[in-house]
Amino acid sequence: MAIAQTILTQDLADEIALVDAKPDKLRGEMLDLQHAAAFLPRTKITASVDYDVTAGSDLCIVTAGARQNPGESRLNLLQRNVALFRHIIPPLAKSSPDSILLIVSNPVDVLTYVAWKLSGFPVNRVLGSGTNLDSSRFRFLIADHLDVNAQDVQAFIVGEHGDSSVALWSSISVGGIPVLSFLEKQQIAYEKQTLEDIHQTVVGSAYEVIRLKGYTSWAIGYSVANLARTILRDQRKIHPVTVLARGFYGVDGGDVFLSLPALLGRNGVVAVTNVHMTDEEAEKLQESAKTILEMQSQLGL
Amino acid sequence: MAIAQTILTQDLADEIALVDAKPDKLRGEMLDLQHAAAFLPRTKITASVDYDVTAGSDLCIVTAGARQNPGESRLNLLQRNVALFRHIIPPLAKSSPDSILLIVSNPVDVLTYVAWKLSGFPVNRVLGSGTNLDSSRFRFLIADHLDVNAQDVQAFIVGEHGDSSVALWSSISVGGIPVLSFLEKQQIAYEKQTLEDIHQTVVGSAYEVIRLKGYTSWAIGYSVANLARTILRDQRKIHPVTVLARGFYGVDGGDVFLSLPALLGRNGVVAVTNVHMTDEEAEKLQESAKTILEMQSQLGL
Amino acid sequence: MAIAQTILTQDLADEIALVDAKPDKLRGEMLDLQHAAAFLPRTKITASVDYDVTAGSDLCIVTAGARQNPGESRLNLLQRNVALFRHIIPPLAKSSPDSILLIVSNPVDVLTYVAWKLSGFPVNRVLGSGTNLDSSRFRFLIADHLDVNAQDVQAFIVGEHGDSSVALWSSISVGGIPVLSFLEKQQIAYEKQTLEDIHQTVVGSAYEVIRLKGYTSWAIGYSVANLARTILRDQRKIHPVTVLARGFYGVDGGDVFLSLPALLGRNGVVAVTNVHMTDEEAEKLQESAKTILEMQSQLGL
Amino acid sequence: MAIAQTILTQDLADEIALVDAKPDKLRGEMLDLQHAAAFLPRTKITASVDYDVTAGSDLCIVTAGARQNPGESRLNLLQRNVALFRHIIPPLAKSSPDSILLIVSNPVDVLTYVAWKLSGFPVNRVLGSGTNLDSSRFRFLIADHLDVNAQDVQAFIVGEHGDSSVALWSSISVGGIPVLSFLEKQQIAYEKQTLEDIHQTVVGSAYEVIRLKGYTSWAIGYSVANLARTILRDQRKIHPVTVLARGFYGVDGGDVFLSLPALLGRNGVVAVTNVHMTDEEAEKLQESAKTILEMQSQLGL
Repeated sequence: MAIAQTILTQDLADEIALVDAKPDKLRGEMLDLQHAAAFLPRTKITASVDYDVTAGSDLCIVTAGARQNPGESRLNLLQRNVALFRHIIPPLAKSSPDSILLIVSNPVDVLTYVAWKLSGFPVNRVLGSGTNLDSSRFRFLIADHLDVNAQDVQAFIVGEHGDSSVALWSSISVGGIPVLSFLEKQQIAYEKQTLEDIHQTVVGSAYEVIRLKGYTSWAIGYSVANLARTILRDQRKIHPVTVLARGFYGVDGGDVFLSLPALLGRNGVVAVTNVHMTDEEAEKLQESAKTILEMQSQLGL
Repeated sequence: MAIAQTILTQDLADEIALVDAKPDKLRGEMLDLQHAAAFLPRTKITASVDYDVTAGSDLCIVTAGARQNPGESRLNLLQRNVALFRHIIPPLAKSSPDSILLIVSNPVDVLTYVAWKLSGFPVNRVLGSGTNLDSSRFRFLIADHLDVNAQDVQAFIVGEHGDSSVALWSSISVGGIPVLSFLEKQQIAYEKQTLEDIHQTVVGSAYEVIRLKGYTSWAIGYSVANLARTILRDQRKIHPVTVLARGFYGVDGGDVFLSLPALLGRNGVVAVTNVHMTDEEAEKLQESAKTILEMQSQLGL
Repeated sequence: MAIAQTILTQDLADEIALVDAKPDKLRGEMLDLQHAAAFLPRTKITASVDYDVTAGSDLCIVTAGARQNPGESRLNLLQRNVALFRHIIPPLAKSSPDSILLIVSNPVDVLTYVAWKLSGFPVNRVLGSGTNLDSSRFRFLIADHLDVNAQDVQAFIVGEHGDSSVALWSSISVGGIPVLSFLEKQQIAYEKQTLEDIHQTVVGSAYEVIRLKGYTSWAIGYSVANLARTILRDQRKIHPVTVLARGFYGVDGGDVFLSLPALLGRNGVVAVTNVHMTDEEAEKLQESAKTILEMQSQLGL
Repeated sequence: MAIAQTILTQDLADEIALVDAKPDKLRGEMLDLQHAAAFLPRTKITASVDYDVTAGSDLCIVTAGARQNPGESRLNLLQRNVALFRHIIPPLAKSSPDSILLIVSNPVDVLTYVAWKLSGFPVNRVLGSGTNLDSSRFRFLIADHLDVNAQDVQAFIVGEHGDSSVALWSSISVGGIPVLSFLEKQQIAYEKQTLEDIHQTVVGSAYEVIRLKGYTSWAIGYSVANLARTILRDQRKIHPVTVLARGFYGVDGGDVFLSLPALLGRNGVVAVTNVHMTDEEAEKLQESAKTILEMQSQLGL
């Protein structure tokens, strides 16, 4: 709902269709959005338990999945969610055969693979929100540390969305200025440890918010609306999102999805970009890939 | 939180301070908003159980109050919330002595009176969200009926926010065109009964959303952000909000707050406007006033 | 150019194509807009002396025409511009056979008729900017007089765009409140003469701006961008624009285009609405119609 | 006017005051903006030949100056404009003693120095638009070459605003990814010559637009509105703007203003950032500084 509401506030769509298994909850949410019509540009909002209501969509965002419990690793959610996807993806793909599929459900890397398999879509039209939000948290913490605007910070977290994500230190820049130069100039004490702590805070962020308020909502809402804007308005911007990673940075052994900086536009994934990675970083990526492939092999897809 | 998030998305404030009694929940919500920094204009977001964090605010929005239970009338919430306001309003008014107080808690009419009394603020700087949302629901339903843009529909529900609210039929217009002429032209079947049904749907709206999803959030978020824009950016627009109604339309007998169309700006309530009311409508208003005054007399303020 | 630049700033289109007869001036304007790309959402901007560049447009805005000279009546511009339209409209209509044609060139009423004839388009897909800007000037002056937000003022000037336009006094409202009640309440001295002076100021506005700065640009830019938003985003709002007026308010004798409040959306003119007019107002309208029809009869279309 | 109109469209100010020496032209422009009030958020627009109308401004933007003639170097404009500034800056600084001064007039580097001297303001409150627009043109051309969003390209042109500006090749990145890696991946043919050609196109851009349409307007309007947003909304973003460059990159010998990447916020220039420069680049900067200092020494300030 945070995604739908942010898309509505930001006027990104002429029509929003909501699908959920619980008709009462669904109708309540639809009405609650519709009641704000006098404060917003005109947008058609519909809702149904039936996928027909989504027919002809340009973008399908899938958030279905059991909510991540406090302390539960993202990987533990998998089996519950694969079963769910067998009921969701085929009718969704059938109703909107030309759409882009954007998977938000966790564990997002494997589930993006699952959605790709179940949809039969070409690989450029299936992506996951991946580390787009992790990277935003990373950028916020760096910006907060330096007292600058987070929109002016470039920084990527890539790989698996979760505990084994990889922070690309060398890619961090502020307004296009590599952060090391920036820090020296500002005479802000800087050590590798500081940045490492920031990464650890990012990794713990989702867990912390879940522990404190029970779930995450606002940040993922903005994060996915941000992706929706780039895709729907053909903005050709680079985002760290879950894409088919086979063949990049020595990742091989099978069709594995991981977050990498990708150029997005109206056709979905336009290109996966080549960012500098140290050997250590590439190795971490390859290990994540191996773990995920192992899991995938047990899904029978 | 829906209010804070909408204000953030719409870039209406340079700084947002959140106060709540539950520190964990509060910190979780603050972090969840902060994590989206890379997707938003730079806004400082702080949070504390202490009102000091709100010092120097231009606008204080009060939403504290027990959530309205399914089936519970707004009036039943009163006693629980007056006690709460004794802990909230004085420190808030002390921290931001020049601010505008905008009350959202229910029953909003009496609680706006309570906030006025406890703050010691001049009456133009204390208002309630009142029927601003009821009017939006009304405008949505009329717009939906006519298949036009709800932003283009002018229509007021005034009086008590709740079961006894008064719909001002004669004031309804579409793009400045009185709705009766509009309907005739569009050859849409029109009867007083249709409009009466729409009003009854509005009155039932909050109850219905609460029954379906457990609470209301999005629409009240947009509604209050809409008021915040008019006030903070000195927009001098007319909104139906809770103001001191004494002396208008034969309302007398004491200091009673009810929703009337009011011109709002940087100083809060600039003027209460004079809208045409039938004798029947004015009588309903006077009755609501009487009921509210009776309750107020038992509060010992 | 003010129209194109406002549409660009307001992010209303994914692609803007400019056509002009002067290739140098045209390329200079295109480059000047393109150079701002880093400050704007990504929009494709092209330009050519050839109409091919407009192929597949959703909306075609025609501003071509000799600039109105100081003191020149709008009607005097006609003959020069009809000849021009014979070179513009047919190739434009051929390149974008499903587009909406929005005419801004003056005299807009006759030229909208000319564009309709030359395009062969159905009448709902040909409209003129008409008195949309006159009405905005009217709303600004009323708002300025009352010290309220012009967006909150509903007021229509209809009929011919120019000296014989008709101000619909009874339709004026502020925030949905008829202006007479509003004025009484605010104790602002009110006389018919005041409003009549405001109308005369509106009629003289274009002449005054032309006398002072040589031409009008910003206001017509915003006015037409405002229409573009309603049409492209299917906003179903009511605007006073030039439409086929035959059969409304006793206007007959031929296919005459005049400004009337019309409901606009993705298909162009959805409906012409029925606003209250006094006999005197309707007569003025009928006279304008007669004058225009006489001119049209001499065009040989 | 393009700056004022863009600031108005983007809703960056509650009040805009225009000052010019020609009262008729000025009043015409003011009216043309005011007439659009119904299409915009409420903003107070005033105009006068007297600086009193600017009293209490947060930001003063100075664009006065003879228009750059086709073929005229920016430096040739100097003497005409210094004389002008003696009439403009002192009354402006007196009317708004706490404002930020943003100089746009050319040659911007020397005139920012002149404005600093004549205002008596602290150095953080005087800056020039400098190479902010050159950098945007640079970013557009790179983005166009790579078919990505110009907002996603980081690239700086620094030094003198004009023929001797310095493009910082090593700082170019796309979405935070150094452009060299990006280009390799996209298999776009890349040579130093390509980038050098892009820089030369940037240097020639203003001249080309002036040759084609007679002057530049839209891009400088967006560029300065972009700076106004960062300053007025305290966005703490890095922009290449004209600042006191003494002491940076071996620039010495006197108080010289040049464009360098600077962190901007509500207080004007928060910090000048330290970007990597090759020896060759630093030498070019030092030479520009020397030329400018020589000119400054002849101004008698």
